[in-house]
This record gives sequence, structure tokens and C-alpha cells, in this order.
Amino acid sequence: MPSLFKRIAFEVAGNPNERTLTLSSGSNDGHYISLRPLVKPSTPEEKAFPWEWAFAGTKDDVDVTVKESGAQQIFKFWFDANVYLDIPNTHRGAVDTFWETWDSGCIKESGKVFPLGADKEGVDFIELWQPVDAQRDEFIIQNHADSQGRSITFKVDNDQYFGLVIVVGRWTQGFLAKKNGSTTKDLSFVRTLETVKGETKTLEQYGADVAKFPTKFTGIKRGDKADVNGLTWDIIEAYL
Amino acid sequence: MPSLFKRIAFEVAGNPNERTLTLSSGSNDGHYISLRPLVKPSTPEEKAFPWEWAFAGTKDDVDVTVKESGAQQIFKFWFDANVYLDIPNTHRGAVDTFWETWDSGCIKESGKVFPLGADKEGVDFIELWQPVDAQRDEFIIQNHADSQGRSITFKVDNDQYFGLVIVVGRWTQGFLAKKNGSTTKDLSFVRTLETVKGETKTLEQYGADVAKFPTKFTGIKRGDKADVNGLTWDIIEAYL
Repeated sequence: MPSLFKRIAFEVAGNPNERTLTLSSGSNDGHYISLRPLVKPSTPEEKAFPWEWAFAGTKDDVDVTVKESGAQQIFKFWFDANVYLDIPNTHRGAVDTFWETWDSGCIKESGKVFPLGADKEGVDFIELWQPVDAQRDEFIIQNHADSQGRSITFKVDNDQYFGLVIVVGRWTQGFLAKKNGSTTKDLSFVRTLETVKGETKTLEQYGADVAKFPTKFTGIKRGDKADVNGLTWDIIEAYL
Repeated sequence: MPSLFKRIAFEVAGNPNERTLTLSSGSNDGHYISLRPLVKPSTPEEKAFPWEWAFAGTKDDVDVTVKESGAQQIFKFWFDANVYLDIPNTHRGAVDTFWETWDSGCIKESGKVFPLGADKEGVDFIELWQPVDAQRDEFIIQNHADSQGRSITFKVDNDQYFGLVIVVGRWTQGFLAKKNGSTTKDLSFVRTLETVKGETKTLEQYGADVAKFPTKFTGIKRGDKADVNGLTWDIIEAYL
């Protein structure tokens, strides 16, 4: 089942906060994308690139092990914005996380990152996730992780670009990055919402290549190609 | 403006969790009630009394001081279930709390309680609150604290009983306690929801006196009395 999680809190060193409107989309087949735009970017740097982080991967880029008390998920990140931009003092490589569902339905993710290098001291973090109903166009709190509705994944990986777009219910999130790039100018992100009235609202849009994201989610099937303004996406999943 | 907050997390000693479906109602005039039923009571004691805590008070039972970084709220608790039931190792007296609104709209409450006595070491806690829309009959996440809609408060304080019922939008929460009692048998709680279709759903109901809670929220005004199965409530607030 697909899922749509809204992050409620990000806690490092016992200090919880939430400066973003983070949504993580999990497709039916296990592909994932998390976009973390700042709600109120304040510094010049934040205003120029108002993203805390973004990452994405296919089911091959995450190892999931279900245990009695929860699920271990090791994220291997096909795309990691911090790595792509080579941001100093950020983690490199896989992140080992553990997910526990509370009685309330909220999900606590805990893990450790190594921003100063794998051989240096790590930093514990907690992220708190609230499952929301991907079939609705407001943030409706669910007390279970699974959402009904369509689950579509587009992927591109050619000489010039790599990118992933996941549609879960009414919510679409995508990234597109230039292969020969490494700056914020080489990155594009999109978040859209199809309202119950059938209108498409663009909630987040960043970068020079936003016109290359797919927008047609009907009449397609797994294995099809989608040509969007000169870019060809592979449809690797299509539950309509 | 009235408010309806759903608690997302309760953190003590760096360990967040949420075992309840806690809603805190804040009336337009500043009266408050917080009911904290356990979602999955597990022990025999929890099954017999499936409440983490409950408290309530009027605007005279809380001191609010707005500061630059947030609001200090000192809760003096007209009713505190732990005090009423004389639960060992729980705090007595006022609780000094500080409320900060995050960019995301969530609200972090932090404070310290003294379960072993005011002269003993205190315990820091954090509660994370998510404002929800009191006008709706689902939990719709808001990014601001204020809800529109009616705000009604009933109070009783006679020889036999004391109690408070607050209606905020579609959501009603109330407690009623016997003056000469001190056990769980002397306490009653109610949480109801008026759906958009106009049906009243009872979400929580506990105690021998639930039939004495007011249920008529139309055609009333501040200063009126409401007689419910032999109990007379004062209507101390009525924005319909």
C-alpha cells in the first residue's frame, strides 16, 4: 500500500523542532521520495535554496527488515541533495533507521548520522511522522500508515539526467538532477496536489527543469515511456 | 478564538511517545479542559480506568503571560484527576509551562513537574500539540492555533458536584466529579462530536454520571442555567 507521511518533528540532541513542511511519499512497490522545504526561510542562503534536504530512491535503494518491535530501514539514497551539492558536515552513505508505531498511530523514526565522517562521533536523531490520507486534499490525520489510491512512479536515468517522481493518491513529489552538475542550479523539485475538484495545485516548484516533470497520470501502464518536453521517463510502477 | 489541540507526543527524559488520544479544548474566554484517554489500555488497572490524565479549569485557573519567544502559561487546575484520585508520585499544585509555535504550526509545550514533591528533584517534560480544525469532524491539521466556530462553557459547582463542559466547534469535552468522592467511581468524563451530518457521536464516555452532561447547545445564552437529569449547570460562556 502506498503511504504519505507528514513530518511533525525533527529532534537532534534532545531539541525537537519543525521548520519544514516535509512530506515523504512511499509507493506501493517500495520506492520513496522525501521533500523538505522550509516554511519560513530566513537567511539569504535559505531564501536562495529553501530546502532543508531532499532524497529519493527505488525499492533497491532501501533495505527493510521487519522486527518484533518495529522495522529497520537502511536508506541507501539513490539521490541525496546534501551529497549531490557536497554540503560540508553532512552525512555520506547509507543511514540505518528504526521505525516504531505508537498507539496513537504516529511513527517514530530514530537513527544516527555521521556528519563529520564515518570514523567520527555520530549524532542521534528522531523524526516523528504523522500518516495522512493521500486520497484527500487536506492533511487528514490517519491512525494507520497505509493509504488507498493510485501509486505511480516515473524514473529517468540517462546521460544527462536522473530523477524520480512518485504519485501517491492525490499527491505528487519529484526531483530531477543534472548528471554533470553539482549546484543548486542543477536541481529541480516539484510537489503538486490534485484537488477533489480535479484541479492541479502546484505546492512547491524549484529549479530550471520543472517543465520536464510528468503531469499525465491517466491512461498509462508500467513499462510505458512518458516524453515530457524532451525528457523521456520510464514508468516503473502504475497502479491507477 | 477557541482552539482544539491534538497531542502528538509526550516526552519525558528524552523519550517521546504517545499512548493516548488527547484533545485539549480552549474556549474563547480562556476556559480549558484536557482529556487523555489511553488508545490501547493494557494492564488491568488501565482497563479499569483507561485515562492517562484529565484536567480542567476556568480562565481564573490559568495565568498567561505573552513573551517575545512564546507564552508562559501557569496552570492552576480547578480539576486535576491525579490530585482528585490522590495518585502517588504525581505532581501537586500549579504547573509552569512555556509554549512556542514552530514554523510548521505545531506547538511545543515544555515545563517541569515535581512528582516526588516540590522540594524534590523535578522532571522536565515536552508535549507537542497539533492544532486541528474544530469545525470539522475529522482531524484536519491546521498551521495556526485558532479555530472558528462556537465556544460554549458549562460549569457546575454545588454541594454535591463540580464539573466543566466545553464545546469548541463540533467537539465537546467534559468532566463531572463528586465533591465527597475521591475514587474513579466518583468521576465522569465525556467527549462527543457533532458530525457535519448533524449526528452526535460519543467518542469517550466514562462514569456513573454521564447522563448529567449537557447536550443541548442551541438557543442558550451566557447566564442561563441548564438542567440535565437533576443537575443544574451554569452557562458561563455561549458564543453560538
